[in-house]
Amino acid sequence: MKIIVDAMGGDNAPLEIVRGALDANRNHGVEIILVGRTAEVLKAVEACGQKSLPAGVEIKDAKEVVEIADDPAMAFKQKPDSSLTVGLNLLKDGAGDAFVSAGSTGALLSGATLVVKRIRGIRRAAMGPQIPTAGGRAVLCDCGANAECTPEYLLQFAYLGSYYAQRVMGIEKPRVGLLNIGAEEEKGDTLRHETYALLKEAGEAGRIHFIGNVEANEAMMGTADVIVTDGFTGNVMLKTMEGVGKFLLKSLKEMFLSSTKTKLAAGLVKGDLGQMKKLLDPSEVGGTPFLGIQKPVIKAHGGSNARAIENAVLRAKEYAESGFIADIQANIEHMRVQPGMEKN
Amino acid sequence: MKIIVDAMGGDNAPLEIVRGALDANRNHGVEIILVGRTAEVLKAVEACGQKSLPAGVEIKDAKEVVEIADDPAMAFKQKPDSSLTVGLNLLKDGAGDAFVSAGSTGALLSGATLVVKRIRGIRRAAMGPQIPTAGGRAVLCDCGANAECTPEYLLQFAYLGSYYAQRVMGIEKPRVGLLNIGAEEEKGDTLRHETYALLKEAGEAGRIHFIGNVEANEAMMGTADVIVTDGFTGNVMLKTMEGVGKFLLKSLKEMFLSSTKTKLAAGLVKGDLGQMKKLLDPSEVGGTPFLGIQKPVIKAHGGSNARAIENAVLRAKEYAESGFIADIQANIEHMRVQPGMEKN
Repeated sequence: MKIIVDAMGGDNAPLEIVRGALDANRNHGVEIILVGRTAEVLKAVEACGQKSLPAGVEIKDAKEVVEIADDPAMAFKQKPDSSLTVGLNLLKDGAGDAFVSAGSTGALLSGATLVVKRIRGIRRAAMGPQIPTAGGRAVLCDCGANAECTPEYLLQFAYLGSYYAQRVMGIEKPRVGLLNIGAEEEKGDTLRHETYALLKEAGEAGRIHFIGNVEANEAMMGTADVIVTDGFTGNVMLKTMEGVGKFLLKSLKEMFLSSTKTKLAAGLVKGDLGQMKKLLDPSEVGGTPFLGIQKPVIKAHGGSNARAIENAVLRAKEYAESGFIADIQANIEHMRVQPGMEKN
Repeated sequence: MKIIVDAMGGDNAPLEIVRGALDANRNHGVEIILVGRTAEVLKAVEACGQKSLPAGVEIKDAKEVVEIADDPAMAFKQKPDSSLTVGLNLLKDGAGDAFVSAGSTGALLSGATLVVKRIRGIRRAAMGPQIPTAGGRAVLCDCGANAECTPEYLLQFAYLGSYYAQRVMGIEKPRVGLLNIGAEEEKGDTLRHETYALLKEAGEAGRIHFIGNVEANEAMMGTADVIVTDGFTGNVMLKTMEGVGKFLLKSLKEMFLSSTKTKLAAGLVKGDLGQMKKLLDPSEVGGTPFLGIQKPVIKAHGGSNARAIENAVLRAKEYAESGFIADIQANIEHMRVQPGMEKN
């Protein structure tokens, strides 16, 4: 298993990226291709305490870097020698089994769609992160790749999420819920009504385990394994989680610092509190797969540290080994609403 | 100031509703009209330790009750002698200054729209709760009344939220943000693009203080006083907050119960932790106003206890005293995109 890593993408590149990739190689035996400016990557390798490249780690030179200021839709094309574009081309050509990048989400998504390409019949690639819930984890799909969606996209997100939960997360019969503002079938807007009908049909045919509408509060308590929604709503849900978590941890911290008594209490729960913080720490999950792309592309958080990258590499490995993409390809005929209108 | 209270609406009616209303009367000198089955209301008054109705509290008999099973859109009409319909008619006729109900949101919204009616020129009433943020509180508008919205609705929600924040919450120059999935002007879907242009124009004319797009995580940290969005997205945001709060408090509780040491810590922070829980407790805010209705209608949480009802009555009083509705009426011409197409 060989994972291609964009050494230049993300706020902490290249040092933390390289460190995380080397950790994944050392701790889990994953082969790595580091893509980026060779001199800078080698310097980072040295800074990690390695005099030379360890066995199973290689560098592929790429002279350019995609920057925040670059147009996301065009960056991969305008910078053909960027670590992002070189990495995606390596994946496309079979030099590695998956690609991990902490760089621009938009550029990575456009690049993945146009270089590696979508699975035939899939209308849009979707972001499907594993989000923490009181029941463990759930796939939230889409959560930002597609602000505007059709019922057919959402039907496909349901399948993508369901197969992902099954193959990669090991959930035998994933409960697929449609994110909505009430439990009843008639709740929500036109997109939800039309999607509900498609998901119900897929559920009745035994292709997915559709459990109906789920409200966001119930979803957080773990009632669904796959939460299906458009990218706009999913992104708001994800960022609200992030914001509330940050807000509550801030309040908790202030509470613990408010008096001698509470400071004493803080000392007593320090380790346990750390565990709790991890619940909402994106580094712990480590990466968001772009579901629907022909080969595994994993977006790591822009602020990823070495631990997040190591986890993202492990997610990429699991994904590449899972058989998920073959599942989608084998069942694509059920995921089309109007096969005659297929464009890709 | 006289507040009409639906004594029969909500999970804990009539006892907790009556108790909360009596508390508001006693503690804050608010006059109250309790609407419901006289015998049941009197029994609740007795259960609160009162032998007879206190001064400033009266009962208005209503023989029916709107139930969960009733069709929300039709309930107020099908049950003309329900506490909800009688209460709304009292408000319309000027018998009181505001109406508070913990009953069905849908029935209350339909009833408010069709009995009390919208402010002339306002296309849709919106729910505008005050949500907790790291910066204090923000108005989230809409958060569930309108799943499907036009840019004009959102423009109006911005004005409604802004005047509400100014008049009722006392924020001199409320920062109005458009909830979106990125900060840049071109982010989001068509609804957001078109709304952005309208809000920008209103901001440039000095009518609102538009600060641009806000992402949900930033909104939770308190970057905006008014968060403008469609009812679908707003509802998902609100319920995600609720769900994450519940999930984290559950995790915190489990953490504190996990060992002798953590149990000791729990004892030390017990009171402080209670304060923190209040941050996310709907009883503390007490009610969601239906903004855009000609007179103040406040929806209290279905699970309201006496404290929540007391707070909702206080919100209703503040709202009725604020001059908010007169502001909207005086400025309605700026809130219309196509005045010729006005229907109401």
